[in-house]
Amino acid sequence: MENGGAKKWGFSGNNEINSTSGITIRGVLNTLMESLNPEDERPVIPLGHGDPSVFPCFRTTQIAEDAIVDSLRSAKFNCYSPTVGILPARRAVAEYLSRDLPYKLSPDDIFLTIGCTQAIEIALMALARPGANILFPKPGFPNYEASAGFRKFEYRHFDLLPEKGWEVDLDAVEALADENTVGMVIINPGNPCGNVYTYEHLKKVAETAKKLGILVIADEVYGHLTFGSNPFVPMGVFGSIVPVLTLGSISKRWIVPGWRIGWLVTSDPNGILKETKVVDTIKSCLNISGDPATFIQGAIPQILEKTKEDFFSKIVSILRQSAEILYDQIKEIDCIICPQKPEGSMFAMVKFSSTLMEDINDDMDFCIKLAKEESLIILPGTAVGLRNWLRITFAIEPSSLQDGLGRLKAFCQRHAKQQ
Amino acid sequence: MENGGAKKWGFSGNNEINSTSGITIRGVLNTLMESLNPEDERPVIPLGHGDPSVFPCFRTTQIAEDAIVDSLRSAKFNCYSPTVGILPARRAVAEYLSRDLPYKLSPDDIFLTIGCTQAIEIALMALARPGANILFPKPGFPNYEASAGFRKFEYRHFDLLPEKGWEVDLDAVEALADENTVGMVIINPGNPCGNVYTYEHLKKVAETAKKLGILVIADEVYGHLTFGSNPFVPMGVFGSIVPVLTLGSISKRWIVPGWRIGWLVTSDPNGILKETKVVDTIKSCLNISGDPATFIQGAIPQILEKTKEDFFSKIVSILRQSAEILYDQIKEIDCIICPQKPEGSMFAMVKFSSTLMEDINDDMDFCIKLAKEESLIILPGTAVGLRNWLRITFAIEPSSLQDGLGRLKAFCQRHAKQQ
Repeated sequence: MENGGAKKWGFSGNNEINSTSGITIRGVLNTLMESLNPEDERPVIPLGHGDPSVFPCFRTTQIAEDAIVDSLRSAKFNCYSPTVGILPARRAVAEYLSRDLPYKLSPDDIFLTIGCTQAIEIALMALARPGANILFPKPGFPNYEASAGFRKFEYRHFDLLPEKGWEVDLDAVEALADENTVGMVIINPGNPCGNVYTYEHLKKVAETAKKLGILVIADEVYGHLTFGSNPFVPMGVFGSIVPVLTLGSISKRWIVPGWRIGWLVTSDPNGILKETKVVDTIKSCLNISGDPATFIQGAIPQILEKTKEDFFSKIVSILRQSAEILYDQIKEIDCIICPQKPEGSMFAMVKFSSTLMEDINDDMDFCIKLAKEESLIILPGTAVGLRNWLRITFAIEPSSLQDGLGRLKAFCQRHAKQQ
Repeated sequence: MENGGAKKWGFSGNNEINSTSGITIRGVLNTLMESLNPEDERPVIPLGHGDPSVFPCFRTTQIAEDAIVDSLRSAKFNCYSPTVGILPARRAVAEYLSRDLPYKLSPDDIFLTIGCTQAIEIALMALARPGANILFPKPGFPNYEASAGFRKFEYRHFDLLPEKGWEVDLDAVEALADENTVGMVIINPGNPCGNVYTYEHLKKVAETAKKLGILVIADEVYGHLTFGSNPFVPMGVFGSIVPVLTLGSISKRWIVPGWRIGWLVTSDPNGILKETKVVDTIKSCLNISGDPATFIQGAIPQILEKTKEDFFSKIVSILRQSAEILYDQIKEIDCIICPQKPEGSMFAMVKFSSTLMEDINDDMDFCIKLAKEESLIILPGTAVGLRNWLRITFAIEPSSLQDGLGRLKAFCQRHAKQQ
């Protein structure tokens, strides 16, 4: 019996992993990609995810590429890294982030991670314990739910309020929290909403968290990508009110998500995270987790210190222009509204009215038909927690964006109910 | 009350992580580094871990560095990667590994990982389920125990037999396995023992596993680093007898452990791992895990296809020379024996006789005193599962190795019992 079949083997895949990891953006986008019509000869327009790195106008700065090459060619960074990251890189991140804070971070506050994704994992791993719960925004970023679900870490959702510029519903936060709540997550600049929180609102978030005795996980992976009236204020500014775990990366500001380097930072001048052993646990988690490539860590000081302002302002200016194109053209489409012009990150949330449309059941149906008929990929809001909304990225070359929005309009007109 | 203290906060570090993750090589080496005498002006000699990348004679080939630079400069790989890895890299790994197999691997058999470390994590994550157990070698590599412990995945140890060239005690494997055993791990070339299994022995491992209905996880991170009479035989050669999960990396053969790229491979021509849903679960695990940097993936085809044989043979020849230095000089030290000349990997296991020594309690005590008195770092066997043994790496520049072994001899003479 050469091939014994399934029966005689004592192992099998653990299906629980499939069920607990839930919806992922990658999973939904894969489904949409499978719905594309191979006979449509037009190029596929990807408005589904925030990775503009393939477009020439979004190419990263040569300074960052040179930093990697220098680090690699030095042959000093082919070795294993310490689990917290190499000191020069941690020192550089501490200095980079301290520029915008009323206190100075130390290299000991910085833990290097494999992109912001691993920073999310480590933060949740360090806080999860039996019976504890954590508060996530809705809409949000589904990696949080997937990572918490996988660890059986209970999560509860508070709303972001579209009529208030996607501010946190702080009354809901207070109502949701109980004595087992350990923290709350905010994402600023906002993914998926494209909003940027004011200083005043962030201060209220800090005060609410303090009142509840919970920490704030501030996901600032889109930090500094702002182009409206609100400047980017890091949550760490309020670290003396409430301990903050700041998550970030070079992925978005430098347009290099594939480089897989980010950070988890204790923005906590009062040392509460040390006192409560959260720092010890973060270190233990890192001891059993992977590290970003050492030579990429070796490039971090040069990348953070040498990148010129004109690179950042060029990227922000393309994003501003694209956000305006998106907002203006959505206004021209009857059955879709965008409640708030995006002022940061790479996304807008827009709502479509299924009652104004023929033969569209929900957002997933909308996006599958859109992929099939128009070779246009847009993320259904369900993937980020809001049914019958859509998350659209504007971080692509402006001409492709125009093209994509034209296809969206044609699709909506074709599926509109006859009046 | 500006700093509220620990009491009022509802979060704390999860100490269970510290306790379940157990001994790590990094943790033990950190303890030894802290024991060094700062007044000793001699250079510290690191015989504790297998990372020779800092020594000029072990510098990686320029072909590998060039491949990274080409991939980076192309700007094609700044983007996110698919969770299984990019196709050209998976295809290149499939071709590279198929050279030594009686069947051809497909790119679908290859999953790229963040070094072999993540391959270990994914393999255990995919197989763990309540009640299941897995068999690990003793001595072994403590990441297996740490990763399983963290997942509450029961593990049992079978011995490797020093008197039989560190072969697997297959009778012990049969005695340990029960109906809940899902797999067994072998590490070949051997870490920590420096042995290389024969074709015949690996075939017996495969037959035993088949009889027990369990799969084999073959950790081949030291693949091709052999310099004795036994050639390297990949376990996948026996994939038609028993399904094999092959773990590997470019870390060791190319001396670039800091590049963090490896693979998990289903060496399973009968498709049993698909049938039993292990492949599905591996994909689910990868969906919620990090990826190796995309531009490093982009360099893999060039690295695997273009590296010249003379680079490999130079590295193997330095390792052969160093292994001989180690073996010969250990013979000159009365209280230490090396049961088997190392023929592969970067390590030897040696046993010391505490009864022949004054004031040395055990291997940990031995290594702490050695660090303090001689600025020489050697890993206590306890870290890899064997008390009162030592794991010594010979993968350092031969002159430093000579120096280190001279210090070891002086230490042992100084601590020898008076006859």
